[in-house]
Amino acid sequence: MEVILRDNRRYILRIDKGEEVFSSLLEFADRQNVLAAAFQGIGACGEVEMGDFDLKTKTYNKHTIKENLEIISLIGNIAVLDNKPALHAHGSFGRPDLSVLGGHVFKVVVSVTCEIFLIKLDGDLQRNPDKDSNLNLLS
Amino acid sequence: MEVILRDNRRYILRIDKGEEVFSSLLEFADRQNVLAAAFQGIGACGEVEMGDFDLKTKTYNKHTIKENLEIISLIGNIAVLDNKPALHAHGSFGRPDLSVLGGHVFKVVVSVTCEIFLIKLDGDLQRNPDKDSNLNLLS
Amino acid sequence: MEVILRDNRRYILRIDKGEEVFSSLLEFADRQNVLAAAFQGIGACGEVEMGDFDLKTKTYNKHTIKENLEIISLIGNIAVLDNKPALHAHGSFGRPDLSVLGGHVFKVVVSVTCEIFLIKLDGDLQRNPDKDSNLNLLS
Repeated sequence: MEVILRDNRRYILRIDKGEEVFSSLLEFADRQNVLAAAFQGIGACGEVEMGDFDLKTKTYNKHTIKENLEIISLIGNIAVLDNKPALHAHGSFGRPDLSVLGGHVFKVVVSVTCEIFLIKLDGDLQRNPDKDSNLNLLS
Repeated sequence: MEVILRDNRRYILRIDKGEEVFSSLLEFADRQNVLAAAFQGIGACGEVEMGDFDLKTKTYNKHTIKENLEIISLIGNIAVLDNKPALHAHGSFGRPDLSVLGGHVFKVVVSVTCEIFLIKLDGDLQRNPDKDSNLNLLS
Repeated sequence: MEVILRDNRRYILRIDKGEEVFSSLLEFADRQNVLAAAFQGIGACGEVEMGDFDLKTKTYNKHTIKENLEIISLIGNIAVLDNKPALHAHGSFGRPDLSVLGGHVFKVVVSVTCEIFLIKLDGDLQRNPDKDSNLNLLS
């Protein structure tokens, strides 16, 4: 991952072929001491792990898709959980026939390039476990 | 709805289970005197009202979907119409099988959580009725 | 295209019926000397040209869709290539039955209106040809 442009607390990041988006962004957050951020991104990937939250079991059903897909939208934020950066992102992904699949995203492996626009925020965005939902909610 | 973080005119908002996104954001706009804003959000919902604009009848065909869906993207803005905050948002929503549906959004009832990143803008963004389209366009 | 609101380097742009989004934004970039920007938009269109990048041929397969579609998300950036503004955007588009199609976008002809939120960035975002991918990557 490369920081291509930095304008105060706004960043354009390029994540490269073979790199994984979540680990790249978390490493960036760690290095730059990002405790709160919002981002959006586009690109292309060869693998994505997605899921939907099952309200009955209170866990995510996970699906791994190993296909070449356009990253149509990747929208999310970076917060802090247990003193470490935590990423929450949802995404939509396009197939060659222009059909789209999407959901809560866990992992995205870049096939060509991924371009992220990220705004670092002042303050710190905390996540804490919520008993009712079994999720780590912003608080 | 809670303001989780405020950095100058940038906000991270959390909308909670059972709350409706549009009324929550409009109430926030009212309270904070937001006359112009852009936002993006992700989350999960149990009900969404969407539509597409029919160019022949110049009205929206509305559909209510009562399913548990991931809010993959919710992108929009807040403007002023008739001296009141007005919200325009489009969204994409994911099913457990990762299929996606989307359109112009009228209503979203949160099932677990919804996380909004909003930037309040200086100035005021006016909407006015446009006779040709029968819509309230930015002006 | 009209600049509806400008707050420092943040813009709300309205692109009108019959106008094409890419040429409108590039003309705006030219006029305002935008060398780096990130944007998101929503609206409605009557024609869209999209594609997916074929890793084998290293070219885009292009598809033109002439239908009335909601612009659910249009996310992208403006950079500089060969001393001229260059636009990269991905989009998702909704049909009346709420099904969604999307991918890398080349062209969008507005049917009713298109509302863009754009942040101009300080600095200049360069694109350069990458031999390996045959694409113009941020650098």
